[in-house]
Amino acid sequence: MVANSQNLHPLDPDEIRKMDAYWRACNYMSAGMIYLRANPLLREPLRPEHIKRRLLGHWGSDPGQSFTWVHLNRLIKKYDLSVLYIAGPGHGAPATLANGFLEGHYSEIYPDRSYNEAGMLRLFQMFSFPGALGSHCTPETPGSIHEGGELGYSLSHGFGAAFDNPDLIVAVMVGDGEAETGPLATSWHGNKFLNPARDGAVLPILHLNGYKIANPTILGRMSDEELEHTFLGFGYVPHFVEGSDPMEMHQAMAAVMEECVLAIREIQSKARKAGATHVERPRWPMIVLRSPKGWTGPKKVHGHKVENFWRAHQVPVLDPQTDPTSLALVEGWLRSYRPEELFDEGGTLIPELQAMAPKGDRRISANPHANGGNLMQPLDLPSFENYGVQIASPAATYESPTGTLATFLCEVMRRNMTNFRVFGPDETASNKLDGVYAASKKVWLETYLPEDVDGTEIALDGRVMEMLSEHTLEGCLEGYTLTGRHGLLNSYEAFIHIIDSMFNQHAKWLEKSKKELGWRASVPSVNLLISSLVWRQDHNGFSHQDPGFLDVVTNKSPEVTGIYLPPDANCLLSVADHCLRSRDYVNVIVADKQPHLVFLDMEAAVKHCTKGIGLWDWASTDKGVEPDVVLACAGDIPTMEAVAAAAILRDKFPDLKVRFVNVVDLFKLMPAAAHPHGLTDADFDTLFTVDKPVIFNFHGYPTLIHKLCYKRRNHENMHVHGYREKGNIDTPMELAILNTIDRFHLCMDVIDRVPELQKTGASVKEWLRDQITESLSHAYSEGIDKPEITNWTWPTQ
Amino acid sequence: MVANSQNLHPLDPDEIRKMDAYWRACNYMSAGMIYLRANPLLREPLRPEHIKRRLLGHWGSDPGQSFTWVHLNRLIKKYDLSVLYIAGPGHGAPATLANGFLEGHYSEIYPDRSYNEAGMLRLFQMFSFPGALGSHCTPETPGSIHEGGELGYSLSHGFGAAFDNPDLIVAVMVGDGEAETGPLATSWHGNKFLNPARDGAVLPILHLNGYKIANPTILGRMSDEELEHTFLGFGYVPHFVEGSDPMEMHQAMAAVMEECVLAIREIQSKARKAGATHVERPRWPMIVLRSPKGWTGPKKVHGHKVENFWRAHQVPVLDPQTDPTSLALVEGWLRSYRPEELFDEGGTLIPELQAMAPKGDRRISANPHANGGNLMQPLDLPSFENYGVQIASPAATYESPTGTLATFLCEVMRRNMTNFRVFGPDETASNKLDGVYAASKKVWLETYLPEDVDGTEIALDGRVMEMLSEHTLEGCLEGYTLTGRHGLLNSYEAFIHIIDSMFNQHAKWLEKSKKELGWRASVPSVNLLISSLVWRQDHNGFSHQDPGFLDVVTNKSPEVTGIYLPPDANCLLSVADHCLRSRDYVNVIVADKQPHLVFLDMEAAVKHCTKGIGLWDWASTDKGVEPDVVLACAGDIPTMEAVAAAAILRDKFPDLKVRFVNVVDLFKLMPAAAHPHGLTDADFDTLFTVDKPVIFNFHGYPTLIHKLCYKRRNHENMHVHGYREKGNIDTPMELAILNTIDRFHLCMDVIDRVPELQKTGASVKEWLRDQITESLSHAYSEGIDKPEITNWTWPTQ
Repeated sequence: MVANSQNLHPLDPDEIRKMDAYWRACNYMSAGMIYLRANPLLREPLRPEHIKRRLLGHWGSDPGQSFTWVHLNRLIKKYDLSVLYIAGPGHGAPATLANGFLEGHYSEIYPDRSYNEAGMLRLFQMFSFPGALGSHCTPETPGSIHEGGELGYSLSHGFGAAFDNPDLIVAVMVGDGEAETGPLATSWHGNKFLNPARDGAVLPILHLNGYKIANPTILGRMSDEELEHTFLGFGYVPHFVEGSDPMEMHQAMAAVMEECVLAIREIQSKARKAGATHVERPRWPMIVLRSPKGWTGPKKVHGHKVENFWRAHQVPVLDPQTDPTSLALVEGWLRSYRPEELFDEGGTLIPELQAMAPKGDRRISANPHANGGNLMQPLDLPSFENYGVQIASPAATYESPTGTLATFLCEVMRRNMTNFRVFGPDETASNKLDGVYAASKKVWLETYLPEDVDGTEIALDGRVMEMLSEHTLEGCLEGYTLTGRHGLLNSYEAFIHIIDSMFNQHAKWLEKSKKELGWRASVPSVNLLISSLVWRQDHNGFSHQDPGFLDVVTNKSPEVTGIYLPPDANCLLSVADHCLRSRDYVNVIVADKQPHLVFLDMEAAVKHCTKGIGLWDWASTDKGVEPDVVLACAGDIPTMEAVAAAAILRDKFPDLKVRFVNVVDLFKLMPAAAHPHGLTDADFDTLFTVDKPVIFNFHGYPTLIHKLCYKRRNHENMHVHGYREKGNIDTPMELAILNTIDRFHLCMDVIDRVPELQKTGASVKEWLRDQITESLSHAYSEGIDKPEITNWTWPTQ
Repeated sequence: MVANSQNLHPLDPDEIRKMDAYWRACNYMSAGMIYLRANPLLREPLRPEHIKRRLLGHWGSDPGQSFTWVHLNRLIKKYDLSVLYIAGPGHGAPATLANGFLEGHYSEIYPDRSYNEAGMLRLFQMFSFPGALGSHCTPETPGSIHEGGELGYSLSHGFGAAFDNPDLIVAVMVGDGEAETGPLATSWHGNKFLNPARDGAVLPILHLNGYKIANPTILGRMSDEELEHTFLGFGYVPHFVEGSDPMEMHQAMAAVMEECVLAIREIQSKARKAGATHVERPRWPMIVLRSPKGWTGPKKVHGHKVENFWRAHQVPVLDPQTDPTSLALVEGWLRSYRPEELFDEGGTLIPELQAMAPKGDRRISANPHANGGNLMQPLDLPSFENYGVQIASPAATYESPTGTLATFLCEVMRRNMTNFRVFGPDETASNKLDGVYAASKKVWLETYLPEDVDGTEIALDGRVMEMLSEHTLEGCLEGYTLTGRHGLLNSYEAFIHIIDSMFNQHAKWLEKSKKELGWRASVPSVNLLISSLVWRQDHNGFSHQDPGFLDVVTNKSPEVTGIYLPPDANCLLSVADHCLRSRDYVNVIVADKQPHLVFLDMEAAVKHCTKGIGLWDWASTDKGVEPDVVLACAGDIPTMEAVAAAAILRDKFPDLKVRFVNVVDLFKLMPAAAHPHGLTDADFDTLFTVDKPVIFNFHGYPTLIHKLCYKRRNHENMHVHGYREKGNIDTPMELAILNTIDRFHLCMDVIDRVPELQKTGASVKEWLRDQITESLSHAYSEGIDKPEITNWTWPTQ
């Protein structure tokens, strides 16, 4: 099963000569970026003043990456392939930059770095220079959808990019350092979700570069036998290309890569004849490229091994400015690529080498999918209003918000069967989104059993991806949206923290792309639907209770982040529609799956969600005048408790003027100067008053509201209830009470904060305390469960 | 290489009969927990009122887990083994609870659940009941160090527990759902860090239960051939036990497990003869147990397949209270275990079955390592004061904080060579902690090459674990500390977010253990040293800049979380000493690796860190009277900028009264009522005044300071500078300026906030603006780097 084609020699002497020359040009430029601030083509002898003052950059993986790129080029041309390249070792940006420059596309994007000696020099100078270019494949890098600053997501990005792009081959270079991360380690299983009839191909190239920053790599020191077992186990056919002699390696790589491309074509051709619903999971090819770290660089520096060792990770020779031997070493190294043979007088690659690269959109650096916004087709969205819950009056009907959403998503899916996907970590049904299966089931390319017809809901051509790896799903969704398609990931609230770091990285990518890179087209947003919320994880207990993801989100740029807490099913529909239409955001939607009160009919819901924050007249008793107290809330369950509190207050204190405010778009609370969604101070003051107590019932940690509101005039009167990390196996009501977001505690707080009630409210407080005691009563020996929050409706007028 | 012993029949008829009976008792109890609130031993016919009102709990993996436990018991007795059991499918708590109860240990811990019928009933009633017991292996579960509420960490916890416990076998049941997670997928490589001469053994048992909540599992549907390849690839010898017939399965499991135990003993015996520095990486055995989900439970319910299908995940029969057929089905199922043969009149396991369990500490539920605080040996710590930096005057000497710490940690390591470890994701040297290698290098059990002598710093018996997986390291550190040993993990600041969720879960575990479970002994804290800080990731760029982990930490219970921002090397020593002595905390220490000013001599550092917050006289000009402005700071780099600002202000405005306050212990800022470290309002007001402007220079996101301080009287005068998500490839000074934490912006803010200076400070502001412009100047074409923050010292008096 294991292919090994190293005995074949597919390249004729002329082709191998030219390919090696092209590769030398890449390597020359990679090293040049790290070292040179003048004399870019070594027209003069190298002198200390040509060397950058601060040497920064990652050399180690560059030659292996360029080697792969050059061999991809050959096959792109031979078979007219569309190849998206993902640089897992993102630290090796010099390779991507060099290839992009040599293909001419880099200068098309950045005319100031023109395709000549002056442009090359400018690129060299800008590389790893303050205010300029990073040493990773940042958003500024044409051809890149993957920075690689944080390691682990190359393969899942690759699978996401390949989904529904049948003509695309995503060549994913996986670093052997990156391969040690958890997210990468499990993302090999992406092959169980890739349908060869419908999707493109992912060609993983595991680069056994041997070393990380300061250590050998685990995979690099595994034997070929163990590696072969590993990848056969994962369902791939591994092909090994190993060595250090360039000529032998060129022949081996050319043979192996062509074999892989042909295998991919055969798999696809067979599958496409059979059709997407009749494919078998193929054993996709993958390549294990074992080449020296810092290949072709200095072998030894100051007596220490460098090539093929950890010392080649960043800058192989550190002191050429001050040590003449080192300067000579660098010069010798750079001249070993014979730049004078590669570039003409003007600093352009000689024509015979230029001809080695593909043309136009076939250039890897210019692959259209790497700037996927340009390929984006907007979703065909049905009118979400048609999926709303009909209500006769506010707070009288119960409906599951996510269950309602599922009916809408089902139609979204049905209308967009090539550019919309849903992702979930085995929780789509648990989160009551399984209604979407009526349009498309869960994709599954592994074995089927007869019993699967009874509720497993899997299908070869399904469009819902479920895998118990939030990392892989988020990576696929990012890859899918960065290449211009649309999607939504649903997760239990507590466990969305698993991808905190991926969120951070994606938000940073979007911010740079949106704000600073005019050439990057807008891409669909990443939509995260957080369900199975803290307030209904009473039965799962403490480990399942954590609403803190919102805190993480609020640290990222306001221009790429949205947080929505629709109070009911109808508002969720409106919010979901908004998010599916939005671009360049990470939208976080917080909505529970259990049946909850519906407060607003669809018309009111649309109006409310469009404003993002608003006063609910029907739940207020201030009748347009200055209230005694503001009862505010955000989140479906806290809103229900706040509404119930409003009903109690109306009953117990008929003269009390309560203003009821609900927040859907959390960033409305931020100052307008700090967030584009933020209310002006004037609007905020009008809504929340400037001196009345505000009792705020919040879905998450209460301090988040203070974090957003601390600059507001009435902030010191804001008293926020929220999750205070008090939990266990509970009932919903008990959990609410422990954290004081329940109706009773809210009323007690109102009594405590409104001067008038402090005098008259004693007996009501007593009654409230009794309600709390009653709600907390246990009766184990009877085997009787404590009171749930029972169905409850807003009292009729 | 693959062992398959299913043809062997090691159990004689009597033994197999008794083992199966014991297993039936486990399964009976597991099902009883889920269903019964009365009639616990079915002395009467089952009636609807015996059934719990709300059916909650996870049945699916229980029988397989108990099956494994019963077979472990046999070998514990036969070979006098010490076995720690880790339940990866933590949702299967009924199995752990049942076994703990049957072993008698559960009742020793919880006398109210006595070892008789009444106790059994109480356990049944309390299971998944509000205010009582979870359906995961929560801290309340004797014998557990692993809740499993969030999946993915069983194996890394297992490796951590096994390190330096040579006599321990950690049996880790890995769920096939869990196996899909990234953290689990890479933690198989833990075998590359386990030294058989020095450490205990980890015996992974991959439980191919087949299904998750609503899906087949990826590994469950892989062929045996692929699985065999996978685990051979990972360096294990997989043993398969597959089937559903209990008698055949007992024989197979008995044979395989004994083979594994003997293989472990042989590996260890050979290694211990050779010595820890001469071992070879063994091919450890592991077991693939393919048994039906919900094994022995109902095969079909209402016409739908349940056993061996996803429907067995939680409660197999949902309606026995209301449907007589279902009630009969549940009764028939429960009676199929023949409880009358297993338990005597009093409800105690009959003596011949009791004899099947190990005794005393050998009982898995009572294994001392599962309550590791009882085994804890305090660290032998040298006087950290001896490792301090000598300084002649404040802010005149530069030293790397982490480099200084390394000299101390080296001696800590040297003195504690069996119960202290350091962990890092390939960053220990980069974080300048490599000084610790003088005491012990990095553990590495993979291949060695001749060149490794030149700086790879790996050793078979090393005590620093480096793997590019923050998940695996954190899991190992948690496992190590929960079993009573000490350690420290270092990480780049931005990438510590990768383990946000693990932090959350561990903090929750510690909180429950510490506050509610008197029987759990205190364990050493998890110490997280965060370095390569945002302010010195100028060269790595935006993706490496994220100080938001602190925000995550502040959402967890104050009683188990500490955040320390030592301003210099001497303070870091003091803080590190404190953290290494602390118990039951997650301590986060933020300290950079670059050379920074040393502000305090050791005596002052100790005093300052002991207080956690304090006024620095030498940098202040308020001379004991009410100041015009408070200049506050937290974090090494922000402190340096604040000190520089103080120097500028003293120079430019000799009459200005500046009070300089430095914060080490961030929780000092919280109200005393909200955090045990918090300052009283009186103390806070004394330090920060009640009405003067406070310019606060903070290491992280500025809103965090507001989150902590919003209740303080002078809060509205607090103006916080911190990271505002403005970054790129920069110089340190530019990064500081973009985010306004630099000395110049601080001075400008002081001028803007102090009424007197608003009139007189115009020319100084002009000068400050010039400084900023100068610092931001670029000169690409010259290839000249922009100004770094140059060495700088506090002006002499």
